[in-house]
Amino acid sequence: MLNIAVIGYGYWGPNIVRNFVEAPGANVLAVCDQDEARLEQAQSRYPGITTTMNPEDLINNDAIDAVAVVTPVATHYDLALKALQSSKHVLVEKPMTATVEQGETLVQEAQQRGLTLMVDHTFVYTGAVRKIQELVNSGELGDVYYYDSTRINLGLFQHDVNVLWDLAVHDLTIMDYVLAEKPIAVSATGISHVAGEPENVAYLTLFFENNMIAHINVNWLAPVKVRSMLIGGSKKMIVFDDLEPSEKLKIYDKGITVSDAPESVYEMLIGYRAGDMWAPKIERSEALRVEALHFVECIQDNKTPLTDGKAGLRVVRILEAANQSMQQQGARVALPAAH
Amino acid sequence: MLNIAVIGYGYWGPNIVRNFVEAPGANVLAVCDQDEARLEQAQSRYPGITTTMNPEDLINNDAIDAVAVVTPVATHYDLALKALQSSKHVLVEKPMTATVEQGETLVQEAQQRGLTLMVDHTFVYTGAVRKIQELVNSGELGDVYYYDSTRINLGLFQHDVNVLWDLAVHDLTIMDYVLAEKPIAVSATGISHVAGEPENVAYLTLFFENNMIAHINVNWLAPVKVRSMLIGGSKKMIVFDDLEPSEKLKIYDKGITVSDAPESVYEMLIGYRAGDMWAPKIERSEALRVEALHFVECIQDNKTPLTDGKAGLRVVRILEAANQSMQQQGARVALPAAH
Amino acid sequence: MLNIAVIGYGYWGPNIVRNFVEAPGANVLAVCDQDEARLEQAQSRYPGITTTMNPEDLINNDAIDAVAVVTPVATHYDLALKALQSSKHVLVEKPMTATVEQGETLVQEAQQRGLTLMVDHTFVYTGAVRKIQELVNSGELGDVYYYDSTRINLGLFQHDVNVLWDLAVHDLTIMDYVLAEKPIAVSATGISHVAGEPENVAYLTLFFENNMIAHINVNWLAPVKVRSMLIGGSKKMIVFDDLEPSEKLKIYDKGITVSDAPESVYEMLIGYRAGDMWAPKIERSEALRVEALHFVECIQDNKTPLTDGKAGLRVVRILEAANQSMQQQGARVALPAAH
Amino acid sequence: MLNIAVIGYGYWGPNIVRNFVEAPGANVLAVCDQDEARLEQAQSRYPGITTTMNPEDLINNDAIDAVAVVTPVATHYDLALKALQSSKHVLVEKPMTATVEQGETLVQEAQQRGLTLMVDHTFVYTGAVRKIQELVNSGELGDVYYYDSTRINLGLFQHDVNVLWDLAVHDLTIMDYVLAEKPIAVSATGISHVAGEPENVAYLTLFFENNMIAHINVNWLAPVKVRSMLIGGSKKMIVFDDLEPSEKLKIYDKGITVSDAPESVYEMLIGYRAGDMWAPKIERSEALRVEALHFVECIQDNKTPLTDGKAGLRVVRILEAANQSMQQQGARVALPAAH
Repeated sequence: MLNIAVIGYGYWGPNIVRNFVEAPGANVLAVCDQDEARLEQAQSRYPGITTTMNPEDLINNDAIDAVAVVTPVATHYDLALKALQSSKHVLVEKPMTATVEQGETLVQEAQQRGLTLMVDHTFVYTGAVRKIQELVNSGELGDVYYYDSTRINLGLFQHDVNVLWDLAVHDLTIMDYVLAEKPIAVSATGISHVAGEPENVAYLTLFFENNMIAHINVNWLAPVKVRSMLIGGSKKMIVFDDLEPSEKLKIYDKGITVSDAPESVYEMLIGYRAGDMWAPKIERSEALRVEALHFVECIQDNKTPLTDGKAGLRVVRILEAANQSMQQQGARVALPAAH
Repeated sequence: MLNIAVIGYGYWGPNIVRNFVEAPGANVLAVCDQDEARLEQAQSRYPGITTTMNPEDLINNDAIDAVAVVTPVATHYDLALKALQSSKHVLVEKPMTATVEQGETLVQEAQQRGLTLMVDHTFVYTGAVRKIQELVNSGELGDVYYYDSTRINLGLFQHDVNVLWDLAVHDLTIMDYVLAEKPIAVSATGISHVAGEPENVAYLTLFFENNMIAHINVNWLAPVKVRSMLIGGSKKMIVFDDLEPSEKLKIYDKGITVSDAPESVYEMLIGYRAGDMWAPKIERSEALRVEALHFVECIQDNKTPLTDGKAGLRVVRILEAANQSMQQQGARVALPAAH
Repeated sequence: MLNIAVIGYGYWGPNIVRNFVEAPGANVLAVCDQDEARLEQAQSRYPGITTTMNPEDLINNDAIDAVAVVTPVATHYDLALKALQSSKHVLVEKPMTATVEQGETLVQEAQQRGLTLMVDHTFVYTGAVRKIQELVNSGELGDVYYYDSTRINLGLFQHDVNVLWDLAVHDLTIMDYVLAEKPIAVSATGISHVAGEPENVAYLTLFFENNMIAHINVNWLAPVKVRSMLIGGSKKMIVFDDLEPSEKLKIYDKGITVSDAPESVYEMLIGYRAGDMWAPKIERSEALRVEALHFVECIQDNKTPLTDGKAGLRVVRILEAANQSMQQQGARVALPAAH
Repeated sequence: MLNIAVIGYGYWGPNIVRNFVEAPGANVLAVCDQDEARLEQAQSRYPGITTTMNPEDLINNDAIDAVAVVTPVATHYDLALKALQSSKHVLVEKPMTATVEQGETLVQEAQQRGLTLMVDHTFVYTGAVRKIQELVNSGELGDVYYYDSTRINLGLFQHDVNVLWDLAVHDLTIMDYVLAEKPIAVSATGISHVAGEPENVAYLTLFFENNMIAHINVNWLAPVKVRSMLIGGSKKMIVFDDLEPSEKLKIYDKGITVSDAPESVYEMLIGYRAGDMWAPKIERSEALRVEALHFVECIQDNKTPLTDGKAGLRVVRILEAANQSMQQQGARVALPAAH
């Protein structure tokens, strides 16, 4: 039985607690939050759980094997580092850290101590994204030409991170899992409509070594909610609409075939194929449940999580580069090849 | 009665011919195309029209008052310049020219000769865009915060221009008409999936002096057709879906109000308002008919067209800057302030 | 403080319990169900509540002022009657009873004893239906010409009632609240695809004295879920799509104007108006919360509930007539004028 | 070469003329209409065609082999009968005649003279309906449980026929082609909102001998246009949305399996399967072109048309019965078994 403590019981924390409470092999011992009212709520729902306002209480508690850090980004590093240093396995909310440097330290610390460091890249554990990964990696799509996502809504303006760190991060975790290639550079643009606040509208392009491009459009100030993503391949293309209640994923049998015919202005070089559309059934298990079980299993069997610290670091690296590019209104910022 | 000749009877030319044939005050005298089969088709539809494969025949014909140039972009400059030099008024397909330099020459030539130079920015003459212009300029939207357009489909790959010149050009003409402010710089990214061919996927950000940003997502390789545009304002927001048969325009009574309260991570600075949605009735006249009448009227009354050579030049300037930025993977390229 | 007991803790019961627990002025004393596991669940959520498998325990408990009956239809009558006879106020799930005769007895019993009998016509307490009622009764729609609803999905086949009693009942409660006129006759058709089971597909037409008609299409065997309703008026028309997350209600400024011109086969008698569409903001409070507060208020202030026993009886009368008509494959079955 | 004359050049006639003009093996000799302006338009488009206001001119013309009757329903019988009596093959607009008696006479006349009598059941020649027929008849759907269609819009009120004859007729032609079984009785309800005019809202249920039901909802007074149809089978179900530009047909792998387990109120008798959805590519040829070629081929090869006079008569029989039922507010009206 794995004893877990959860730090942070705000918006997302209750979901983490509930899923570990229900996960066979796991046991939630304690919950920590700065807000007493939140703790009372946790207490009333789970009378057997210890609550505290001081994270040190959990980190220094020998009965606790693992800590989930579900707090604002700025605090991830300190809490996760202390937990690792106290020999706890760690699950940390995404984005993993506020800087690449912090992320590197966490990864190194976990590695040296042989502890599991996992990042809560929730989308990776959804049925839809797993099906996309299958389609891409089985070669069914052919060569991947582009990934294009729109993730907009009338959202809460956040004060500590910009809209890329809040919304584009989802796509970065999906791409990290689904695409074989990693980006080599970024170009980002954005704007803040409230003086002194982080960008609330932003656009991010990712460049790859091969014949592929990715783009993410995020916006906290849209009148309609959109969660729509396209992946174009040489053989097939995917449309993923996460707001569709039943047909989230549509696969189109459309593609292009390049011919070698001599070209001219009036002549088409490219032959189009257009055929059936197919909406596969998607596994409906709650992603967080799958993820909680995976965390427990990785610790018990000493396996590397699908979304380990290195994956978390790759995502932070892109976000940091995107911030740099955005400062320069779109200038290309390279990513390290080996990352 | 204005006597008009049309050069180019390919995809768009027949629409231009039909609308001038039906426009009171105009008379189509001649049609020119390089393809004999196209000319035969024009002849059979309009037995009274003269056809020719040689544009000089029209340009040197004294009976002709005005020439419409509906040919590939690369040929616009030569044909339009010769027509102006022969004292013809000119309507030229968008984008007006292949370079800024060419555009400047055309504008100057028309000006010196006192001739009407108009560009076929068709969207400006649609009921939907006119309604948007009204909403923006009446102040009903409040301050405009962003313009964000997605214009994608499985389209014909063009060999002479990239996807920005083919699809983003529509948004540039709309913005030129609708927004009071003009962009001061651009950042563009894109990719070609066929070696030696122009970019078929591209993303363009436009920067403005004030608190506004614009973004255009264009793609010839999408499995679904999308023609969707958002304009976010401080008071209201517009969603324009050009594929909706009846409710193309929706206006949302949603906006943000910035308060001066001291901020904290857990505290909201911003108050949201969310209210009714409203889909105004849109004028359904064919845009090209409105445009043809406007061209005739501008010549007869010596008025400046809504989409004159200067508007055409502003659009070409942005497209040329976008190409430069795309070469540098997103680097900011400034636009002249006075443009 | 009103002390309430809830009989039935299956699918809907927990919602009733939760809303009375949270309603100021109400107190849930006890919950009854035949299934021990359900009772344990209720107990763990609300440790202060008494649970029992015997409804008599609640009905005979003098501390209890009101009873909510949330059990299968066949049992409504017995439980509600006993509760009334023990001087409890009663809230009963819809449809109120399995027969008109039962319904009449309940209404009479409540009346004689001066007790509140209310039926859980939940839709009447939603923001959307209240807005519809406003629009219809303010005259904004003009004369109401028709009510047309489609309510289909891949649903659980029920064994005790047919699909009209399960799904069409929602529309009957809405119509009872929204329309000034009451139906005078019905025609219903339907089919059961499983031998010995009640109809799982059915169609119900309602006739009115004036120039109006209503129709309801219900189906437990549809591949897609639809909750869509039209109300056509002489001035405006409403589309209510309950599955739309944000714009549930759309009001169309479309209507017809009848002219007196002499007619001919080739001539139109009718002039159409088509104008704006408008989606009003809908109050988002949970319907059951509004309803729970209304029940408490009606008892305390001795007011007649919006959905009293007579409303419940009117709905049962239509359902019973519909069953008769369905037996005769659509034959008209009259409803009593005074009902 | 088959020489054809077309009587009626109003809304639909020009499409018939154009498709026969373009059909190899056919030749349009003459067009007849009561409206001189329409004839002038036909003449200017097809200078080689003879025009006349007198249908007798065509019927008595020995050079003419076949006549297409594209006039109001009331006139079909006289024109078609005269044409058959003059030994012309006949294509007649749907519904074939205004009464069953008229239809029987036409079928008999054509049969005795060995002439081709075909009805313009256009939908039967669309790619979508042909694909549906394939799916149903290959057994892929399993047993067909229901056919349910909604066909509504803000339409022109017609003066000579009610909305069933105008809109439901489409579904009757589709069912006649797609379903193996023929209906044995109908129940219809409807209303006219304009005194003295035919019903503009109507609902039609069709009963079959086996475990199947059909229903059609038609309305000329709806604020939105809907063309949506469901066919539910024991194995799969079809959704046909004719307004969808690209995915008109969706096939759902959803069905029910009836188990023999003992039932109870709380227990499910029925197991649901829910799986993939699939949108097959649809043949996009113009239906009327396919139909025109079929008419020519049937005459030349002496084959029975897919939509022959008997099919036309079956449809008229249902419409006549529906009118009778509607007079009696839904009473069951039987159809002859042999029809």
